[in-house]
Amino acid sequence: MLIVKKFGGSSVADKECIFRVAERCIEDYRKGNDIIVVLSAMGDTTDELIQKAKMITSDPSKREMDMLLATGEQVSASLLSMAINSLGVPAVSLNAFQVAFHCTSTYGGARVKRVDSQRIRHELDYKKIVVVTGFQGVNKYDDFATLGRGGSDTSAVAIAASLHADLCEIYTDVDGVYTADPRVVSNARKLKEISYEEMLELASLGAKVLHNRSVEMAKKYGVQLVVRSSLNNNPGTIVKEVAKVEKMLISGVASDKNTSRISVIGVDDKPGVAFRIFNTLAKNNINVDLILQSVGRGGTKDISFTIAQDDLNETLSLLERSKELLGISDILHKDNVAKISVVGAGMLSNPGIAAKMFEALFNAGVNISMISTSEVRITVLIDENDVERAMISVHDAFGLAD
Amino acid sequence: MLIVKKFGGSSVADKECIFRVAERCIEDYRKGNDIIVVLSAMGDTTDELIQKAKMITSDPSKREMDMLLATGEQVSASLLSMAINSLGVPAVSLNAFQVAFHCTSTYGGARVKRVDSQRIRHELDYKKIVVVTGFQGVNKYDDFATLGRGGSDTSAVAIAASLHADLCEIYTDVDGVYTADPRVVSNARKLKEISYEEMLELASLGAKVLHNRSVEMAKKYGVQLVVRSSLNNNPGTIVKEVAKVEKMLISGVASDKNTSRISVIGVDDKPGVAFRIFNTLAKNNINVDLILQSVGRGGTKDISFTIAQDDLNETLSLLERSKELLGISDILHKDNVAKISVVGAGMLSNPGIAAKMFEALFNAGVNISMISTSEVRITVLIDENDVERAMISVHDAFGLAD
Repeated sequence: MLIVKKFGGSSVADKECIFRVAERCIEDYRKGNDIIVVLSAMGDTTDELIQKAKMITSDPSKREMDMLLATGEQVSASLLSMAINSLGVPAVSLNAFQVAFHCTSTYGGARVKRVDSQRIRHELDYKKIVVVTGFQGVNKYDDFATLGRGGSDTSAVAIAASLHADLCEIYTDVDGVYTADPRVVSNARKLKEISYEEMLELASLGAKVLHNRSVEMAKKYGVQLVVRSSLNNNPGTIVKEVAKVEKMLISGVASDKNTSRISVIGVDDKPGVAFRIFNTLAKNNINVDLILQSVGRGGTKDISFTIAQDDLNETLSLLERSKELLGISDILHKDNVAKISVVGAGMLSNPGIAAKMFEALFNAGVNISMISTSEVRITVLIDENDVERAMISVHDAFGLAD
Repeated sequence: MLIVKKFGGSSVADKECIFRVAERCIEDYRKGNDIIVVLSAMGDTTDELIQKAKMITSDPSKREMDMLLATGEQVSASLLSMAINSLGVPAVSLNAFQVAFHCTSTYGGARVKRVDSQRIRHELDYKKIVVVTGFQGVNKYDDFATLGRGGSDTSAVAIAASLHADLCEIYTDVDGVYTADPRVVSNARKLKEISYEEMLELASLGAKVLHNRSVEMAKKYGVQLVVRSSLNNNPGTIVKEVAKVEKMLISGVASDKNTSRISVIGVDDKPGVAFRIFNTLAKNNINVDLILQSVGRGGTKDISFTIAQDDLNETLSLLERSKELLGISDILHKDNVAKISVVGAGMLSNPGIAAKMFEALFNAGVNISMISTSEVRITVLIDENDVERAMISVHDAFGLAD
């Protein structure tokens, strides 16, 4: 089997961690597998490098920033390679230039274009464990460009796709994908399998086990993913096209507290108004999530929507500046809100999921202020203080418990 | 003018240093020059990276070591580039892959093969200051290989040669090349000019301003070098093919305390014996410097030679192991010896230089134990405790003082 293993920064934070990863790779290598390891930078290295840049200037060139950040993975990759070598197994580290990991030109947020398989294949032919720097690519200007947040997951999937790997293992500090955050819902259950679709919804809902770009890519190229712990040998959760139908209709409950609600009051009830508001936000890279528009009355209407809490100040000042232009009479906002979502491919063929969720929330005495649905997801906006209670109640109602 | 400027690690050790270098580059850029900067890693970065590797294993793979070390220059180059950018001048950092700096395959001690000029030229055409990582190259396996001690000097000269630069400035913490180490000989004088030949002899004699490989390359490709201080604007010392004849016969006095003398006693007085001894050392990468062979008497002879002090233990154990094979009756060694040399193109056409040097040493009461000469150099081996006294006396005798 050809296996791609991705380890995050905390998995290579110090000598002990590095040797734990080395031994884990060697274990599978000794079973006769071909092993490619994709690594992030050690522990806080990336933050330290950012600090170095900020020491020079508050607004460093993005091109130079990526040149700087790319060293982080090169350090961890060479050290892991040394560790594997020292345990008697041949290993070689490769950076984005050596792999020829092609990406788009956007510094700090590049997307994968193409990964050459030749050099990696050559090293595998020599029975080496190949350690590849995650997070980085080379763009058309022959410069380093980093892939942005969660980029190493995407690196691993892209390499797995390019080399037609049998498996892409994403190692994290949790055992796999759970039906809910185990820190909130104590009897949450680990899923054996989940479909790409469901994983995508969970990923975008703030279940931080996998970056959604990596799931999108895995889905596109049919890369079988496994999310598992770097601390134990538990089997983890398999992410694939069609997950085995289990008894449950839904596979998980997720919550996201990084949410604010904004209400724009008294805008003209005529075509184009909503477009103008959301266009203003889009142009400033602010993602709008749930949107609720009241039925027009007396020639005006209200529009409520949610955004990430981090974007609140910028959004408010943008709206304030365009108040007259957009015909807004008042802008309200609420900080202490949260999203709670149920995700499941099962809901496609099972009506009544929403009703069941609302019933569970009612039973827990939780008020719903906004609702949004997709094919495999139902999301509601509730008060932040109700999140834990709501999670437990919904989780129970769908029989997800262990 | 196209100017290559090389700065060592101490010149980019912290924020202030980096901005000092940035301003220095911008000053010459604003005068209409094209500027290429070649950088070492910041301060102690290289030592810190070596420590990281030693933490993993006492004997790290050389290939991975170079992968690790190459990050040091990439960090300093990107930070300097950010600093120059922040001062309003466009700059771009390039690593060995981006430049296409080709070197031989020996990890840790690669030699320059060819430097492509295309990418650097392209960036210069866009009026950017180009910041290049020193010390590193890419070998035929498409791997990083470092150039060994003093490698960044060599990088700078190689780039200057490839781009036919008008000048290659090597910035150090001294003002230039002196007639003797100013810390020993207080009235030592800075040379305005020196020939490649003389500089080569001084460099190999432990005057650490320039690495001799860089001087060899400068001589080969006719690159005009200037050695100057990164701390002031003094003009420095020009190194070129033919230095202006000054009044002096010799251009400098150098000393080297990193020397040990070994005497091999009672070897057979027949052909091939010296060859066998020195071949054994050469095969183990031990450089032999001065050699003195006694006239054979009673069928045996003695051979004395000097080596670097660091190689003493290894040399002794090698000789001890081959004692019987080489027919050696006894091995003596002396640690506290030092070389003192006078260097000067002038001595070619002026007999009596050696006599003058020996007279100066006699006047200072310094005993000479070995002598070696080249076309532009006379070296003697003396007691380590006599070095300072000898330096001052010889320096005075040749009228080198300020």
